[in-house]
Amino acid sequence: METYYGIEAATGAALEGEFEITQPSMVGEVMERAQEAFNAYQSISADKKGDFLIAIAEEIEAMGDILVHRAMAESGLPEGRIIGERGRTMNQLRLFGAVAKKGEWVEAAIDTADANRKPFPKPDLRKQLEPLGPVIVFGASNFPLAYSAAGGDTASALASGCAVIVKAHPAHPGTSQLVADAICKAADRTGMPKNIYQHVHGTGFELAQELVKHPLTKAVGFTGSFVGGKALYDIANQRDEPIPVFAEMGSVNPVLIFPETLKQKAAEWGNTYAGSITLGSGQFCTNPGLIVAIKSNGLNEFTDSLLESLGTITSQQMLHDGISNAFNEGKAKLKSDGIVEVIYAKDEENNRLGGPCVAKVDGTKFLQNPTLQKELFGPYSLIVACESADEMLAVIRSFEGQLTGTMIIENEELNNYGAHFKALKNAVGRIIFNGVPTGVEVATSMNHGGPFPATTDSRYSAVGADAIKRFARPVSYQNCPSSLLPLPLQNENLNGIYRKVNGELSNASIPF
Amino acid sequence: METYYGIEAATGAALEGEFEITQPSMVGEVMERAQEAFNAYQSISADKKGDFLIAIAEEIEAMGDILVHRAMAESGLPEGRIIGERGRTMNQLRLFGAVAKKGEWVEAAIDTADANRKPFPKPDLRKQLEPLGPVIVFGASNFPLAYSAAGGDTASALASGCAVIVKAHPAHPGTSQLVADAICKAADRTGMPKNIYQHVHGTGFELAQELVKHPLTKAVGFTGSFVGGKALYDIANQRDEPIPVFAEMGSVNPVLIFPETLKQKAAEWGNTYAGSITLGSGQFCTNPGLIVAIKSNGLNEFTDSLLESLGTITSQQMLHDGISNAFNEGKAKLKSDGIVEVIYAKDEENNRLGGPCVAKVDGTKFLQNPTLQKELFGPYSLIVACESADEMLAVIRSFEGQLTGTMIIENEELNNYGAHFKALKNAVGRIIFNGVPTGVEVATSMNHGGPFPATTDSRYSAVGADAIKRFARPVSYQNCPSSLLPLPLQNENLNGIYRKVNGELSNASIPF
Repeated sequence: METYYGIEAATGAALEGEFEITQPSMVGEVMERAQEAFNAYQSISADKKGDFLIAIAEEIEAMGDILVHRAMAESGLPEGRIIGERGRTMNQLRLFGAVAKKGEWVEAAIDTADANRKPFPKPDLRKQLEPLGPVIVFGASNFPLAYSAAGGDTASALASGCAVIVKAHPAHPGTSQLVADAICKAADRTGMPKNIYQHVHGTGFELAQELVKHPLTKAVGFTGSFVGGKALYDIANQRDEPIPVFAEMGSVNPVLIFPETLKQKAAEWGNTYAGSITLGSGQFCTNPGLIVAIKSNGLNEFTDSLLESLGTITSQQMLHDGISNAFNEGKAKLKSDGIVEVIYAKDEENNRLGGPCVAKVDGTKFLQNPTLQKELFGPYSLIVACESADEMLAVIRSFEGQLTGTMIIENEELNNYGAHFKALKNAVGRIIFNGVPTGVEVATSMNHGGPFPATTDSRYSAVGADAIKRFARPVSYQNCPSSLLPLPLQNENLNGIYRKVNGELSNASIPF
Repeated sequence: METYYGIEAATGAALEGEFEITQPSMVGEVMERAQEAFNAYQSISADKKGDFLIAIAEEIEAMGDILVHRAMAESGLPEGRIIGERGRTMNQLRLFGAVAKKGEWVEAAIDTADANRKPFPKPDLRKQLEPLGPVIVFGASNFPLAYSAAGGDTASALASGCAVIVKAHPAHPGTSQLVADAICKAADRTGMPKNIYQHVHGTGFELAQELVKHPLTKAVGFTGSFVGGKALYDIANQRDEPIPVFAEMGSVNPVLIFPETLKQKAAEWGNTYAGSITLGSGQFCTNPGLIVAIKSNGLNEFTDSLLESLGTITSQQMLHDGISNAFNEGKAKLKSDGIVEVIYAKDEENNRLGGPCVAKVDGTKFLQNPTLQKELFGPYSLIVACESADEMLAVIRSFEGQLTGTMIIENEELNNYGAHFKALKNAVGRIIFNGVPTGVEVATSMNHGGPFPATTDSRYSAVGADAIKRFARPVSYQNCPSSLLPLPLQNENLNGIYRKVNGELSNASIPF
């Protein structure tokens, strides 16, 4: 039996507990168990599935400090952040529990029969979304709770009716295992099929690869680096039966600051952005890595204020040595490459701390060097100083797909920058006005996604109630006996959900 | 200038008219024009876009017999079918025109701000679906009108706000060109941006490949063979920026006939299926290519009736020589391979006619030979005779992804075959009871799609109002000034559309 153990982020020391590594050769058994569980789960009511999700939240909460302390040790994140993230995780589980129970997410559509229609009788036709099958979820290093064992991908996939196999992120095996145990407890307590949720550990890429390759796997959820997400995406597309991969791979989240704001509020925004860049040691997928503005006194004032505020912020622990090493190497490379001018770099003696870094470059140079758009994961941001509004527009039009884009702009100058707004909107999943991109609201109206390479499928969000749609497909029932129809498609509309009835939304039963 | 011409399906003779072939080297210019048109189209109101689609229907209708006769000549399809298909095409255009005008398809979601929320103020967040960008549509040989120049893919992509480039199917260049001219006329008449619709001709694969590869291309719609669809899908996934491909690649559309029906109504269903198998010379993607039942006197009676009825049906013209040659070769191979027993094969002297063919095989042999699941495009069906209900279940579980699955079953035996129902449902996009799979209703509740290899993305339908969602992605607006918000997200709900407001569907304006 091969095992590994957790590492304390702050010290690199081994933590208590050994975790068994699942060998790639075991994937077949894992997936067959998942398929069997998926089949059984189809007979469980949506209401019971909702109970299961809510029970997971309860079991996580019931662990109390044990989970909080383990997550702090493995991730290096402070207590407030972990408690906040635990709250977010439980909210997500309860949200998807409610979504499952209500059943409106299936987008039920009913077209009633008309035997007298000419030239052919019109059949009775009913459609709803149904689960794809077993889903592989990869734990994210930067969200040990909210995007890991019981995170948003797991919650939405279980709510949709899929079986879930989580591969724990090796940076927090203990946290992941504690949560996995809570899920299994909740599954037992609410009478779910055995193995509806499975949890595996592994440190290499081969296990991940075998999980994605297995013919019984029907979808993949991933949050992490471009390299990791794209590799899984390619494997999934090269299968005999390609499967959807929803990989959220982060981005540089450009922020545009417009002239009037720079005249009026430069210092204030400089201070605000110092906080956003360093939040969670810059380890959010929505971290603002790019700030674009036209050269002006205001931009100088903004920059001065940003650097001054950064000087007052204590550097934070990074998630694990892989990330802090990459960040430190990235900072060093910025200096040695000399393409950008590093105007702030706090180098910490303890290199597990993320010492913030800010660089500056001209618009022309930025346009000539597409690699400057690549994310340096951590508390880093690049200021792009443009000669003119036209150059600023060219810079925006050069953006790769992004999770977010932000406009810091005064009302009176909105009309001058319509083209900038449109160009930014076309590149992003979410556009923010006069705020910071960090902070991702869990709401129906949230889109946490965006054009490639921010994600592998811009048509879906990873956050909010609609995230459930990633793991479902429509099925139509034509002239189906009512005893075989799924509940949301039956005439009696027991939950009073909205359905498209003969093309119009209605929450009535049929016949009206 | 390289040109080609249309071929009369019935004779192989050249038809009037020469069509200029777009060289692969011209793709860059085509796509830049499309991008420019897409940018301009974003400023056109949804209402005007709807007018455009409705105008296309009018222009097509206005061509009258010229279009009907050309389509008949190029496709070999009879007048009634072409007139019916033209009607379907105009219905689709008007449907998507109405969908665009109403604007409810954007799935608007609004979460209102709460400045007093703790620990952080809640932002104002609004989300809607927006068009992906220029879309390539490939004309389908088997639907010269309904899935070609102004077919369902074009109509839904234009309605969503995308620019469209259609590559005409080389089997009906004249039909395609007539329709393309009608679209351009409609675009002019309704004041649409130049090049919002472009139409190109080509006979080789290279043009298709370059269109899909071009960086400005953002999505692809395709209806046709597995080989063609999969090749485009692979190209799209190997791009630097992978893009979604919705390829509908057909299937064998299995039909299960259960014992009680075979006792009571074998002859009647045999007769009905003779009609379904030969409809349009078997050239529908929903053609029933597989009939599965348990060995019995009833199955023999069904088979006798099927063959007898086939004997009374006049063979019809196939679409083009490529298809009729492949069908004739496929029939010959069935006999020479000897895996199945050919029990009916009408061989026509004029081999452009599709002489129906029926074969038979044991369940065991079927399970041993997965290639028997491959579609033979044309009026062909394979009867799989099983030893038992268990073997029948194993056969169903072996199915690849299918557009449709059909159950011919009496109410009194429904309870005996729950496992068969579930297994079939998991393999298909649409499940039909006591009917035929041919005939695809244009309705919201229609799913014309299904698990791979029936399509490349089981999460979307190619038919019905929801087909528009293939070409759109969500965009969130956070604290966006109302002057920049798209109409469906503004407080005033001018069209009275349903929106998710703070998580609940409502057609009211805000504040309530």
